[in-house]
Amino acid sequence: MALSQRITTLTGGGSDGWDLFLKARAMIADGIPVTELTIGEHDIRTAAPILQDMHRSAMGGHTGYAMVPGTDALRDQVARRTTERTGVKTTRDNVLITPGGQSALFAAHAAACDPGDVALYIDPYYATYPGTIRGVSAIPRSIQTRAEDAFQPRATDIAAAAEGARSLLINSPNNPTGTVYSRATLEGIAQVCTDNDLWLISDEVYDSQVWEGEHISPRALPHMAERTFVVGSMSKSHAMTGSRCGWLIGPEEAIANLITFATHTTYGVPGFVQDASVFALSQGAPFEAEIGAPFARRRAIAQRVIGAQNTVGLIPAQGAMYLMLDIRATGMSGDDFADALLEAEHIAVMPGESFGAAAAGHLRVAMTIEDQAFEAALTTLCRFAEARAT
Amino acid sequence: MALSQRITTLTGGGSDGWDLFLKARAMIADGIPVTELTIGEHDIRTAAPILQDMHRSAMGGHTGYAMVPGTDALRDQVARRTTERTGVKTTRDNVLITPGGQSALFAAHAAACDPGDVALYIDPYYATYPGTIRGVSAIPRSIQTRAEDAFQPRATDIAAAAEGARSLLINSPNNPTGTVYSRATLEGIAQVCTDNDLWLISDEVYDSQVWEGEHISPRALPHMAERTFVVGSMSKSHAMTGSRCGWLIGPEEAIANLITFATHTTYGVPGFVQDASVFALSQGAPFEAEIGAPFARRRAIAQRVIGAQNTVGLIPAQGAMYLMLDIRATGMSGDDFADALLEAEHIAVMPGESFGAAAAGHLRVAMTIEDQAFEAALTTLCRFAEARAT
Repeated sequence: MALSQRITTLTGGGSDGWDLFLKARAMIADGIPVTELTIGEHDIRTAAPILQDMHRSAMGGHTGYAMVPGTDALRDQVARRTTERTGVKTTRDNVLITPGGQSALFAAHAAACDPGDVALYIDPYYATYPGTIRGVSAIPRSIQTRAEDAFQPRATDIAAAAEGARSLLINSPNNPTGTVYSRATLEGIAQVCTDNDLWLISDEVYDSQVWEGEHISPRALPHMAERTFVVGSMSKSHAMTGSRCGWLIGPEEAIANLITFATHTTYGVPGFVQDASVFALSQGAPFEAEIGAPFARRRAIAQRVIGAQNTVGLIPAQGAMYLMLDIRATGMSGDDFADALLEAEHIAVMPGESFGAAAAGHLRVAMTIEDQAFEAALTTLCRFAEARAT
Repeated sequence: MALSQRITTLTGGGSDGWDLFLKARAMIADGIPVTELTIGEHDIRTAAPILQDMHRSAMGGHTGYAMVPGTDALRDQVARRTTERTGVKTTRDNVLITPGGQSALFAAHAAACDPGDVALYIDPYYATYPGTIRGVSAIPRSIQTRAEDAFQPRATDIAAAAEGARSLLINSPNNPTGTVYSRATLEGIAQVCTDNDLWLISDEVYDSQVWEGEHISPRALPHMAERTFVVGSMSKSHAMTGSRCGWLIGPEEAIANLITFATHTTYGVPGFVQDASVFALSQGAPFEAEIGAPFARRRAIAQRVIGAQNTVGLIPAQGAMYLMLDIRATGMSGDDFADALLEAEHIAVMPGESFGAAAAGHLRVAMTIEDQAFEAALTTLCRFAEARAT
């Protein structure tokens, strides 16, 4: 029985780039101890007070259909956080609560693109980006960045790709590169969006994890609030990945239409999860800093370990929970290196190629294991590279 | 800033049919006591043992990303329930767990239809059906049923509409009519699907609420498992509307593709909600019967009240939590009657017209308030109709 083209061509054919991850999982299942540095998930669980608040809400009776746009309390809380951090006046009418950030990414593209429209995204990219675009029957078009620019996109490259496009998807702090877009980068992007009448879809789920420089939301740049969607989530900032609670921020009219879309795609988010999210957000910035602290600490470890040798390069790790390592001095591809490292040392890292052609010859290392094991794995990785340097 | 056509035309223009509902809500907000018979939601909350199990799961650490297709335990439990109730061998590979039944409806249409394809649905219909079809950029085409057939669809009517169509969406037990499709109806539908190579999307979220006859899943008819998606949910059967946990059952290859789609649209369902759902499903059929019992009781009340007069007709209420009342003897439209009833008696019921042209001159009454108040409201409604009968 024939399935839609949409669904059968979602990954664009070929590998989805997660072969290494699956191989590591299989080894673990076979009882082989593998040091896992592949996944963007905290090594802590959701904090007990948040879960206790969720339970209070559920037992208190918040178990029926919640309002589809999100509860007033959570929309207000997200609006307040956004206003405080960006200076852009944001109200509940600018906020749609979604079952996670991925759902917000999908909704934003559904709002921006009709079938056949071109949607731009930056390479390297988070794994789901091109498939999300295909999911709304739009056509993904990638814009390559360069290792020598620390993967900051160039406005001229975006402008050259913008013809016929409806939207541009960016992500800062960036997964997989750890790059935080500079004001100059974002101003260039804003100009291209205005010149080409593009929607800007800004994935800011790592906005609380900035180790160098500052996080600038492009929605705060002149004339950008009217053409920008911001994707946010409780996942990374509050270690609530499994709760599936995120949001989309955008112009009022767009959000009003997206509420109707949500009625037809998800029908809202559990009320008790939303109440727990209000509780978590009300803990304020100190709590978010606490959740991010282990990554800041491990980043310092990585700078020390990598600074002590000359084979492996470190893309400035400005934000998020990842390192992007340059292993081109070994003459190996990221795929080959990651595979050899897994075989020989039982350390699993993601090949840069998993995130697009621009990250070839690189590795993404998730800083998601405890400090000592992290330092040991990174030290081993560097020695492994040195032994293979040409 | 221009939004996509998809998102701006989702409701097909005009009223979304919920004016009456909103008017009742506004009256309640103004302090006017309104008897609310509009919403398909239980008058009980999710049972405490289910919520306690959810809390155990969350505190036990199931707070990280759950597997995108659903946990093995929940997929197995849903597969087992399906096999037991339908006799069709169903395994975890036939099951995708979704954040609610609406999400499963959307995913099924995404799998069946590409942009521009025609998708069929039966009138009267649940409010989101045509918009769900438009949400995947397909074209909704309705098939009218008739009050004199108790809204059982005729295969000849479906066949006449099938040209160029890719899918047919049905719902039995039916919202809004309370009709349960007979074996003859379903065999006719299966034949049309086979003849026209249609996907059948069968919304069976009320499968545990059958008061007369039996629930037959069309997936169990010969050669239908390969072309049928079944939508299920914890919402109605377990009074877990707010937990947003549902599923889609289909052929293995389709489900494999839909898992990829889920990765790009929702990224899974909270693990603690899935664990709570396993717990709830493991209570078995007696628990589902207990959840349905108030509706069976109120249906008997309705049969008695309506049997005692001759103005208002009752479409055989075979299943689900709704009554469909025929008020054509008053000469009024459902819209006018519902509006007048709300104004005069402060009783809110949904006009049949809210669910499509086929239900004109009818009312949908949700049996979702306690028995005595329900009987009183129904008695008032009948007297109100009698006074207006021509």
